[in-house]
Amino acid sequence: MSTETRARVGASNRIDDDATVGYIHDADAPPADIGDDATIRAGTIVYADTTIGDGFTTGHNALVREDTTIGDDVLVGTDTTIDGSSTIGSHVSLQTGVYIPTQTTIGDQVFVGPRAVLTNDPYPVRREAPLTGPTLDDGVSVGANATLLPDVTVGTGAFVAAGAVVTEDVPPETLAVGVPASHEPLPEDLTGENEL
Amino acid sequence: MSTETRARVGASNRIDDDATVGYIHDADAPPADIGDDATIRAGTIVYADTTIGDGFTTGHNALVREDTTIGDDVLVGTDTTIDGSSTIGSHVSLQTGVYIPTQTTIGDQVFVGPRAVLTNDPYPVRREAPLTGPTLDDGVSVGANATLLPDVTVGTGAFVAAGAVVTEDVPPETLAVGVPASHEPLPEDLTGENEL
Amino acid sequence: MSTETRARVGASNRIDDDATVGYIHDADAPPADIGDDATIRAGTIVYADTTIGDGFTTGHNALVREDTTIGDDVLVGTDTTIDGSSTIGSHVSLQTGVYIPTQTTIGDQVFVGPRAVLTNDPYPVRREAPLTGPTLDDGVSVGANATLLPDVTVGTGAFVAAGAVVTEDVPPETLAVGVPASHEPLPEDLTGENEL
Repeated sequence: MSTETRARVGASNRIDDDATVGYIHDADAPPADIGDDATIRAGTIVYADTTIGDGFTTGHNALVREDTTIGDDVLVGTDTTIDGSSTIGSHVSLQTGVYIPTQTTIGDQVFVGPRAVLTNDPYPVRREAPLTGPTLDDGVSVGANATLLPDVTVGTGAFVAAGAVVTEDVPPETLAVGVPASHEPLPEDLTGENEL
Repeated sequence: MSTETRARVGASNRIDDDATVGYIHDADAPPADIGDDATIRAGTIVYADTTIGDGFTTGHNALVREDTTIGDDVLVGTDTTIDGSSTIGSHVSLQTGVYIPTQTTIGDQVFVGPRAVLTNDPYPVRREAPLTGPTLDDGVSVGANATLLPDVTVGTGAFVAAGAVVTEDVPPETLAVGVPASHEPLPEDLTGENEL
Repeated sequence: MSTETRARVGASNRIDDDATVGYIHDADAPPADIGDDATIRAGTIVYADTTIGDGFTTGHNALVREDTTIGDDVLVGTDTTIDGSSTIGSHVSLQTGVYIPTQTTIGDQVFVGPRAVLTNDPYPVRREAPLTGPTLDDGVSVGANATLLPDVTVGTGAFVAAGAVVTEDVPPETLAVGVPASHEPLPEDLTGENEL
């Protein structure tokens, strides 16, 4: 793409011609700073003012906006949007079409399934309120098409079922399921660590 | 992009090189007609035969198809699709990944959260039926990942909760919540006007 | 786009300059093999090592990955992702933003509504398990924003309601509705064949 960009990228990277790395949203933005072994596929846009570790991999048409910090060995799937001002750990897999709003915190070894939606605005545009996205602690899994309300914390090793709408904090090692999500002990076959 | 286009755009616009404004879907299509102060970001496609007011802003990879009328100060978020033949008012915010089918009507001061899905086909491809999208009256808010069935009307100032599936008309100043959505009085902290 | 590609496409095709047909994900990949009368719109990426019949039509920013077989007269809507290693029949309509994981099987005359999400991993990254996507038999309709769990089979002519979360096999000619989906006889006005 011909868009002007500003980026530093480490060794052994594979960046498609049609990917945009270091999109300049602000004339004063520092460059995107990306580690070694990056794979960034066609159609994906990574903004300037991002700091990303080694082994970064994206699908197509993903978006990573400014003021985002990402650890090592992170996958950002096709059509996933990270809307900026967030922190993401290492060994994290965001599958296809995930939405991560601003002010989100994601730990290590976290898996987020396709089209899961995180939110950050408790009273959308109705009153002044600070935007606060969810916190996903280490080892959390979020199922496909789940919805997480603003400011919820999903505890270490917890599992959010596909299609659940999470309205309250989920304790560690707990299954959240349904609309609104109720909390249950983690079934035997969902214990164990995420292999990421 | 090298795609052939046909468009008139007002003053003080910022259109990324990799955006497509006035995509020609039909050889006879009139141009896209966009007001002043437009910001259209890389990867977004706006068709010809669209009429859009001042202060139009898009994210990336959004799509606005033909026969669409949009008022002033409207945001079309990243990955949002407006599938054409719809009317959208002024001071409207469509967040990331919203789907607006044909034959949809959206008023003024409307907020639609990330990945909300509107629909227009009551008997998908099973029998002949006119396509009729939802009507969102002035001041409506729709939460993240909500689903609206065809032809429902969401009344003035009503609020659709995140993850709700709306199957019936929602009265004005009402909260719709759950699957299928039930209707409740609007909680105190959700009253007030959308600040758009 | 300037990405290197490898493809054979039949007669009477209309492929936008900004579409990518035959994206080479592997140096040894055979070409994309696409029949006559294809329409592939700007922003869409079709990988090499795909076999697609006549009358193939896409929206914008769709993705079809490798090792995918698709029949005749198939629509792949805007932002829809087919993640590869899947088989799709003829006269199939995948509307906007559908997600089809690997190891999915879709029959003929199938309709999948906007933002429906299919999944293939029963214990996401927690234990070794074979990935198995859903099977949609002939004549199935899936409503908007529905979620299908891994390995479910939706029987011939069945109908999954908008927003449903399907956790068990759906018998033929059955309506699946709710979270989790319960099964009901197909209402009179949803009987009949998909007109695709």
